[in-house]
Amino acid sequence: MVERESLSPQEEVRVLAGAARAAAAELARAPSAVKDEALRAIARALQAAEPEVLAANAEDLAAARAAGLPAPLIARLTLTPDRYGAMVRGVLAVAALPDPVGEVVEAWERPDGLRIEKVRVPLGVIGLIYESRPNVTVDAAVLCLKAGSSVLLKGGREAERTNLALVAALRRGLAAAGLPPGAVGYLQGGREAAQALMQATGLVDCLIPRGGAGLIRSVLAQARVPVIETGAGVCHLFVDRAADLEMAVRIALNAKCSNPAVCNALETLLVDAPVAEPFLRQLGPALREAGVAVRGCPRVREILPWAEPATEEDWAAEYLDLILAVRVVDGLEAALDHIARYGTRHSEAIVTRDPERAERFLQEVDAAAVYWNASTRFTDGGEFGFGAEIGISTQKLHARGPMGLREITTYKYRIRGAGHVRG
Amino acid sequence: MVERESLSPQEEVRVLAGAARAAAAELARAPSAVKDEALRAIARALQAAEPEVLAANAEDLAAARAAGLPAPLIARLTLTPDRYGAMVRGVLAVAALPDPVGEVVEAWERPDGLRIEKVRVPLGVIGLIYESRPNVTVDAAVLCLKAGSSVLLKGGREAERTNLALVAALRRGLAAAGLPPGAVGYLQGGREAAQALMQATGLVDCLIPRGGAGLIRSVLAQARVPVIETGAGVCHLFVDRAADLEMAVRIALNAKCSNPAVCNALETLLVDAPVAEPFLRQLGPALREAGVAVRGCPRVREILPWAEPATEEDWAAEYLDLILAVRVVDGLEAALDHIARYGTRHSEAIVTRDPERAERFLQEVDAAAVYWNASTRFTDGGEFGFGAEIGISTQKLHARGPMGLREITTYKYRIRGAGHVRG
Repeated sequence: MVERESLSPQEEVRVLAGAARAAAAELARAPSAVKDEALRAIARALQAAEPEVLAANAEDLAAARAAGLPAPLIARLTLTPDRYGAMVRGVLAVAALPDPVGEVVEAWERPDGLRIEKVRVPLGVIGLIYESRPNVTVDAAVLCLKAGSSVLLKGGREAERTNLALVAALRRGLAAAGLPPGAVGYLQGGREAAQALMQATGLVDCLIPRGGAGLIRSVLAQARVPVIETGAGVCHLFVDRAADLEMAVRIALNAKCSNPAVCNALETLLVDAPVAEPFLRQLGPALREAGVAVRGCPRVREILPWAEPATEEDWAAEYLDLILAVRVVDGLEAALDHIARYGTRHSEAIVTRDPERAERFLQEVDAAAVYWNASTRFTDGGEFGFGAEIGISTQKLHARGPMGLREITTYKYRIRGAGHVRG
Repeated sequence: MVERESLSPQEEVRVLAGAARAAAAELARAPSAVKDEALRAIARALQAAEPEVLAANAEDLAAARAAGLPAPLIARLTLTPDRYGAMVRGVLAVAALPDPVGEVVEAWERPDGLRIEKVRVPLGVIGLIYESRPNVTVDAAVLCLKAGSSVLLKGGREAERTNLALVAALRRGLAAAGLPPGAVGYLQGGREAAQALMQATGLVDCLIPRGGAGLIRSVLAQARVPVIETGAGVCHLFVDRAADLEMAVRIALNAKCSNPAVCNALETLLVDAPVAEPFLRQLGPALREAGVAVRGCPRVREILPWAEPATEEDWAAEYLDLILAVRVVDGLEAALDHIARYGTRHSEAIVTRDPERAERFLQEVDAAAVYWNASTRFTDGGEFGFGAEIGISTQKLHARGPMGLREITTYKYRIRGAGHVRG
């Protein structure tokens, strides 16, 4: 038997991917009821493993504190009994979702009687690279399993003890339900291990990076396997001259403040010049009260003198914090230009009473989700009714916007003939 | 003004991509009628340009012969008046297809009244890298335009004079219809130019390589932009013990011989042991008569002693020629194993009268198109009823199998509210 410690990251990926591929064939054949029972068995195994997972998490946290890691990272790394309970309930919620696999997306018959059927099937083996949020280990693995795919996980090194304890419970759950534990693999180690996963051509059908802009950039630069890019959201709200200004204030505050740390939060507010003064006089005090720092263009600072001056970098910034860039623009055209230049194609919104300008905005803005008179915060698998999400795609291939179960499947054609040959 | 000759390939890509991006915004807004009129104008411009394109082609051919390039490459490079006419008729056929853009794929309303609409939209800028087949220049550009996207073309260097003459006609057609000629860009030069296109992150929304296995491999290894892999087809036919043997002979001959040079042609025949003798005794002479060389496993050679011995390489070979690898296998399970190991996930077929084994094959084979009692040669956009195809995807993300107009679009969500904020 080969000692695991003696394997190179490339060999480790090959071993895990081999097991994952074999398991994927079984998962693809498994009826919905068997997959759902496996998810419930996983929930039970996680419940039983809570003491050991929390103990492993305490060790990770102690090491992180000893290494002087920053407070936000430690906060993300921390599993509390409350968070743990929410994670387990999340598994049961995914078990209760409809199975995307097997759905006949389209079917037609040629005049010669050949029947063609387009059917939804699992992707196979999904790779996932993420940062030190242990809940992602469970959330993502369970979505992949429900969608009939195996998953190879590579989480942040700081969470490795926690992640390994979670993965052991996931695998026990699978085994208890008679499914192969190799459907969930965890790749230990640092950058080299992540790199081996990114370059596992032919072994991984799709790689999903989940994390900050730095992680996404590094995956895009190094990956040799197909990637679904997720993440960065420099989201805009354009307050048109025909806006209901009170509605615009409510939407701006919701989009900026309800959860500033997420990718669908508002980062830049664009205000149409004719309403800049009345609107900013209403919004300004509310932002201050909510503790939001404003970085404004010169025309904004004439109205809100307490705002800091915005620089070119502010227009491209994803603050993920209580900071808002604000710019006065001359009309819809200027707003569209600004968004085309600085947007990340995530979520963009207009507030206006003018249906013509609204429809033009909906039509011309190139983004996953474009809103009229609503907050960008709705860009979310749960809010869209997908039941859960594995991430929000900001690329245009395969999936765009919130990715639920359907978005992590593929399709194939099944064709039934009676001796048909091509003329 | 900057001289084009002084630009590096990276700068050249930036200039062309900038024009393509601006043109894409206009194309995305253009109504179907305007796009269709532009395609008809392109057909007229191509007709008018026939003498100059054929003259450019003659120069390319003379240079190719002088350089001693192989005969198959010269055959692919050659434009005859007949081929030219077919190319122009192809443009008119695409103009007549339904527009994929604007289709509302799904729409729903949340209980709170927020209306979410998933709508098909253009990809934006599509890159295409291909070999020295000048007709691809026109076929691919026209499909991208119809799907509302700009296209950046990089064809084989040997066809450059021909391609530039074709692109000039395409751009004249666009201009005549009032659309921006920058919607079609052509990147001159060799490998460095192709590389610059592959690495144009943020400038190209999707890159489609079209050509042989070498080209595809090189693009997969070097690309930094999202790629749709096309191409290699090691397609199998499994003749089950319950097959109608005469039907199996017809399908095998059609799949191998009707056009051996294409990716959906049969490359390996798997025969269930119990019917190996009667089946191969029927098929063997027919193959010989059709000029097909057989490479067989030892059990095949007992029945067809004139067959050459097959080596391990033969099971993985995409011959694209009148050669067929033949293997006797012990049942469906062994056939599935062989296909899982050597198949390229393109097209796979079973011939059998047993519906249970057929359904198992349809279910378990992981390929873009899986056939029961029909030839693999049907895997084609035209045969599937898509009207045209830009290639056949062998990857699982975004599009699988024949890619028509819909497969070169993406989607976005348009969301209409009345002041909705997230709770």
